[in-house]
Amino acid sequence: MVTVIDEIMKFEKPINDRISEVFPEKEPKGLYEASVHTITGGGKRLRPAILLIATEAVGGYWENALNAAVSIELMHTFTLVHDDIIDNDEVRRGRPAVHTIWGEAGAIIAGDTMYSKSVEIMADCPTEPEIALKATKILTKTCVEVCEGQWMDIDFETREDVSSEEYIEMIKKKTSVLFGASAQIGALMGGADEKTANALYNFGLLTGLGFQINDDVLDLVTPSEKLGKKQGSDIAKGKRTLLMIDALKKGVKPKAFGKGVLTQEEIDETIVELTKSGSIQYVKELAESYVNQGKAELDILPDSKAKTNLLKIADYMLTRDY
Amino acid sequence: MVTVIDEIMKFEKPINDRISEVFPEKEPKGLYEASVHTITGGGKRLRPAILLIATEAVGGYWENALNAAVSIELMHTFTLVHDDIIDNDEVRRGRPAVHTIWGEAGAIIAGDTMYSKSVEIMADCPTEPEIALKATKILTKTCVEVCEGQWMDIDFETREDVSSEEYIEMIKKKTSVLFGASAQIGALMGGADEKTANALYNFGLLTGLGFQINDDVLDLVTPSEKLGKKQGSDIAKGKRTLLMIDALKKGVKPKAFGKGVLTQEEIDETIVELTKSGSIQYVKELAESYVNQGKAELDILPDSKAKTNLLKIADYMLTRDY
Repeated sequence: MVTVIDEIMKFEKPINDRISEVFPEKEPKGLYEASVHTITGGGKRLRPAILLIATEAVGGYWENALNAAVSIELMHTFTLVHDDIIDNDEVRRGRPAVHTIWGEAGAIIAGDTMYSKSVEIMADCPTEPEIALKATKILTKTCVEVCEGQWMDIDFETREDVSSEEYIEMIKKKTSVLFGASAQIGALMGGADEKTANALYNFGLLTGLGFQINDDVLDLVTPSEKLGKKQGSDIAKGKRTLLMIDALKKGVKPKAFGKGVLTQEEIDETIVELTKSGSIQYVKELAESYVNQGKAELDILPDSKAKTNLLKIADYMLTRDY
Repeated sequence: MVTVIDEIMKFEKPINDRISEVFPEKEPKGLYEASVHTITGGGKRLRPAILLIATEAVGGYWENALNAAVSIELMHTFTLVHDDIIDNDEVRRGRPAVHTIWGEAGAIIAGDTMYSKSVEIMADCPTEPEIALKATKILTKTCVEVCEGQWMDIDFETREDVSSEEYIEMIKKKTSVLFGASAQIGALMGGADEKTANALYNFGLLTGLGFQINDDVLDLVTPSEKLGKKQGSDIAKGKRTLLMIDALKKGVKPKAFGKGVLTQEEIDETIVELTKSGSIQYVKELAESYVNQGKAELDILPDSKAKTNLLKIADYMLTRDY
């Protein structure tokens, strides 16, 4: 049986080939090594896959949207490189974070280079100039929102009164808008009209919101090897994710919360506590409801294999275990 | 008499007004305060002025190029904000550097936001989509080169064998290419053909190179109040600028070189030493020769007030004392 992962993976080689073309070996060598370090470290390529399948779903050829797909992945990866400096995270996609190898200065400059390349290849899409320009504007508007989300995330660290609504607004900006932009730009590259492209944006935004809300649960319940970073790191850092906002509202505060370094036993205890409190269930159901709202946006599309694949990816946002 | 400064300053208000429009007061408040902090702190607006006068010099209306001018200034300022984190510089344009107020995380995110806005308004220029797209690609290609230059600059800190040629290649990328892009984009916005736009690029690149080479002298000889940062900071940090590369080649090594903190007496002694060695003279003459090569590129243009102003700006690159 062809799984949704197979559908996503079929784009892996063309995406990786285009990445190599965008970053040829050149001087200064260190800068270009630092710039491709994270993006060649793997990752599910979920955003570019959504973009390319959206192109197909509106009747276009994914080959014409390859630059846009790589642009989106580069933009996503650049924000990770800068975030890892900010959050002092040392591992990303199973590799040492850029700043741990090339220093903060190196990671700042490599991130800026990646973002420049991201815009450059979006502006260079093989399509009418109006469409390439529109896609470029969506990309940069999205990056501004991602920055707003990242700023809110940092602000929230020093606040104890963050509401669920504020938290959802933050992750919408920090994460979901890029899923929205991926689907919307994919649709535009496939020749979709405004209305269809906007529906695709909403599909990406809402399923991306479900994805991120679910991610907070995965951070706690998925073993480190699968997760590619330390299990329970949000809880360890004392981060008020939706899971903890709900638990604290119910008067539940796991010992592990904000403890810094956790043993496997402490992680397991926390899982039991947050299961009992109903917080894990609450977050999972909320994620599911957003994903379902997102899927409904695809009613605008005629039936096709690509549409079915987008719906499968939406489900995968919830069923994935890492 | 109308000076070149008056010619540059006449664009100050329209540029500042457009900046306010690009950054309206909005949430998260801190992010937008941090993002406009440096750009509203002043600066000579030399790059946007060159861009707008280039538009006029090829027969266009500067009003149509205002977005492009603000885009260039924003891109320039974003690189300063990130550079100040990297170099740990605490003052910029007479104000505390962004990272000293909002922390490194804040300065990284504010810089990313500024760059996004820079691209966004370039893509949004009131011109044919082909031209806006071309200008956007020049902008991002230029930013990649600026990153390469910044990377080389950091690399050079740990090397004692940097040649004059390598140093010039570094400042060409770190600084001059943005002057080139300013003049080229200005010409494109004014409807210039490829050949004229390229000549304008070379004008900007070569005079910008003269500007930066001269800047190394100004860093040493200009009092802090005028300079907007500490006098002699390159020498204090032990930075191998062209001035020091030449002095060291001649066997002259001022005591102040790499000393960290300098007294006014030590700065004055260094000026005397590097004057005697002929290094200041050498650097000034080199700067002049690049500026003259740049001016010659303007032979392609018909005579006009705007052309005269570009030539005056080129001279100002050398005669300015801060």
